[in-house]
Amino acid sequence: MHELDSFFYPRSIAVIGGSERPGTIGRALMENLLKGKYRGKVYPVNIKGGTVFGLKVYKSIKEIDDEIDLAIFAIPAKAIPHVMEECGSKGVRAALIISAGFSETGEEGRRLEAKVVEIARKHGIRIIGPNCLGIYNAENGLDTIFNPSDRQDKPKMGSIAFLSQSGALGAAILDWAAVEDIGMSKFISYGNAADVDESDLIEYLGQDEKTKVIALYIEGAKSGRKFLEVCNKVSKLKPIIALKAGKTERGVMAVSSHTGSLAGSYQIYSAVFKQTGVIKAESLRELFAKAKALALQKPAKGRSIAIVTNGGGAGVLATDASESMGLKLATLSKDTVEKLRRNLPPMASTRNPVDILGDAPASRYEYAMETVLEDSRVHGLIVIMLFQSPALDAEEMVKVFKKIAKESEKPIIGCAPGGRHAGKYARKIEVAAGVPVYKTPLEAVYAIHALVERGELTEK
Amino acid sequence: MHELDSFFYPRSIAVIGGSERPGTIGRALMENLLKGKYRGKVYPVNIKGGTVFGLKVYKSIKEIDDEIDLAIFAIPAKAIPHVMEECGSKGVRAALIISAGFSETGEEGRRLEAKVVEIARKHGIRIIGPNCLGIYNAENGLDTIFNPSDRQDKPKMGSIAFLSQSGALGAAILDWAAVEDIGMSKFISYGNAADVDESDLIEYLGQDEKTKVIALYIEGAKSGRKFLEVCNKVSKLKPIIALKAGKTERGVMAVSSHTGSLAGSYQIYSAVFKQTGVIKAESLRELFAKAKALALQKPAKGRSIAIVTNGGGAGVLATDASESMGLKLATLSKDTVEKLRRNLPPMASTRNPVDILGDAPASRYEYAMETVLEDSRVHGLIVIMLFQSPALDAEEMVKVFKKIAKESEKPIIGCAPGGRHAGKYARKIEVAAGVPVYKTPLEAVYAIHALVERGELTEK
Repeated sequence: MHELDSFFYPRSIAVIGGSERPGTIGRALMENLLKGKYRGKVYPVNIKGGTVFGLKVYKSIKEIDDEIDLAIFAIPAKAIPHVMEECGSKGVRAALIISAGFSETGEEGRRLEAKVVEIARKHGIRIIGPNCLGIYNAENGLDTIFNPSDRQDKPKMGSIAFLSQSGALGAAILDWAAVEDIGMSKFISYGNAADVDESDLIEYLGQDEKTKVIALYIEGAKSGRKFLEVCNKVSKLKPIIALKAGKTERGVMAVSSHTGSLAGSYQIYSAVFKQTGVIKAESLRELFAKAKALALQKPAKGRSIAIVTNGGGAGVLATDASESMGLKLATLSKDTVEKLRRNLPPMASTRNPVDILGDAPASRYEYAMETVLEDSRVHGLIVIMLFQSPALDAEEMVKVFKKIAKESEKPIIGCAPGGRHAGKYARKIEVAAGVPVYKTPLEAVYAIHALVERGELTEK
Repeated sequence: MHELDSFFYPRSIAVIGGSERPGTIGRALMENLLKGKYRGKVYPVNIKGGTVFGLKVYKSIKEIDDEIDLAIFAIPAKAIPHVMEECGSKGVRAALIISAGFSETGEEGRRLEAKVVEIARKHGIRIIGPNCLGIYNAENGLDTIFNPSDRQDKPKMGSIAFLSQSGALGAAILDWAAVEDIGMSKFISYGNAADVDESDLIEYLGQDEKTKVIALYIEGAKSGRKFLEVCNKVSKLKPIIALKAGKTERGVMAVSSHTGSLAGSYQIYSAVFKQTGVIKAESLRELFAKAKALALQKPAKGRSIAIVTNGGGAGVLATDASESMGLKLATLSKDTVEKLRRNLPPMASTRNPVDILGDAPASRYEYAMETVLEDSRVHGLIVIMLFQSPALDAEEMVKVFKKIAKESEKPIIGCAPGGRHAGKYARKIEVAAGVPVYKTPLEAVYAIHALVERGELTEK
């Protein structure tokens, strides 16, 4: 058992500040823990006593006649040192401090934070936070993201872990992932990182069996050296992808107002990412696109990709994006071109991008995809489908993907620009065949680019 | 009346190849024209005779006892010269040729296309197409986009006109615009541009009262000089925004396989765009983001923008994107900073980006937005809202935007990352206040960048 497991798999939780009073974080936490999937024990602790949602309220954690794995703090900052001492006596192993009012507020807060950390260390308690949204564990329903449920959705279980230095942005990402049907294993907003920092969490997620990809929004690492060492180690086990904010001069200034991090030079971070095998994203959509691809598809064994499309224009856009990002459009072998020519209509383009024309049925996709994937010059495939076409039966395409993705040793990425119908079948293909399908050629190319980068790290 | 009005506002249409046979384009066209909003007369013409959806079928257009404004062709290419002659005798003014099998197929097709154009010119008939999806006019329901309605949605009426050299991609964009609730005035897939080309259409849309913004997917202009002249003229009247495909060497090759256009050097196109005031987009999302901003908001009178946010992380991302694109984060005046400091919580950042903190209610947004917009150093405002926050009443924010956007002479752009709730209120703000609200900081910055570029063209 890992030391940090108490944060993610507690058998019992004390909610310090647990309450029924509307509008309080203490209430939101109690609701999340009692109404959701979480099945461990939950003990509200509040000096006011009484009951909360029918549960007895303990005036002190010491009164609870049970072992407590995790204490979640939602009380004013100044009251925390005292309660932390009590947690120590009680034998608590993990403290998640949601409360703000610490180092992010200035010198006095910094001293208070140091004091809390000191007490916790004395007792062997690890801290996540303070000043954070905390944890969402899709596996067991542990959820401290206290935004109202009519404003904040949470994603389904999946294999992407998400670490966010920004709580608010992290919450928006959770909400977004839910609506995009992107599965997450664990989400952590770690706030000031007074004790457990991003490197500890990356290390933890590195050994977490439920996590296949670690995605990261970061403004500045707590310790550069530790970050470098951990990334170097963990990226050999599973992909890490990072969006580093504070890229420009004004961005760096904004970071210092926000989390007080030393943003560090973006060039230095870029170099660290490259050196340690961390895949870089420069926007939220790029982060999402790449994380999903790394979660669902295999790495590519080279930089040469092929494109199969029923629309020439989308094929050109994907070609431009690929070449702009330093990927190569594979020059198909003579054999492949001949095989394509034999069975595709005369107007089809057998050069890469392979344009199988607007009247292509699913069977033509199947033939083109299989033929192109057999070519040893091709390391990965983007399949663009304009599902608006009367000729293209989307259900049949789901079957084609199921069959081909299962057999293929090369990564396959889909792209289905459009609206409701296209979106519906994009999802179906993802679920049935494990092929991520993107709305735009650019995102599909981000996706395959991440798999190429991953391949360069692992396949050598 | 403009010569091309017959294509967009015909009082009567002959559907050459109109049919009831399932799976035919002739049937899809008849369905679109009869079942939709279009109220003009529709005459099916088919050598097979009989009836189509209860309408008498004419064996020749010459038999129709009515004037015909527009003839839509969905018959084999080879049959078109003969029917075009008949259209000439009948006094038809506009011919929309959906049919493929012309210059895109090689030398024989080129000759056929030239012959059809020759006949049409002899009779004073203008042609759109061949080898295209044709026209969607949201105003009167004229719709020749023949994809099945369960696979292809069409957008509501709006003020963006969209021109696409690629039919399939254009259809996907229509479908996408529908689901994103982006309104369009007119859509034209113009195919081979045998007669009416992109420049003619830009000129037409330039004088079209329903169109405020012209958006363009282009692989290569039919005539570079004409394109330059028309863009130069029309961009003074309304914004033109273009996504030029064929940017890289392989992209240029792909273009030549696709539409046979000489893609021309991307550098030359970029220079032409700059010289003629055409705003450039490099991806579909950028095109959408910019077109929507140009349709809804006013140009900015300078490059200095301000950001107001309830989430520091999203503010940093917007700052990075702004500076990366060459915008400036305004240095707020001493007065503005003092005014902000007076009424914002002590922890708020009164530097730009103005971080009004996670507990900001709508009233705090109102104060910060008004204060920042009053600063003469600020030329445009991005408002980031993390609507997941328990403190932020989204209905109140709609009111704030309605009030402020009405009074402001500076452009305002919204950004609301997240899922269902955030998306719902993004739409509400767009509809109620005319402020476009984007899902990501990057798209919000694309949007304001387009307004800055537009301002540099018009405000000097």
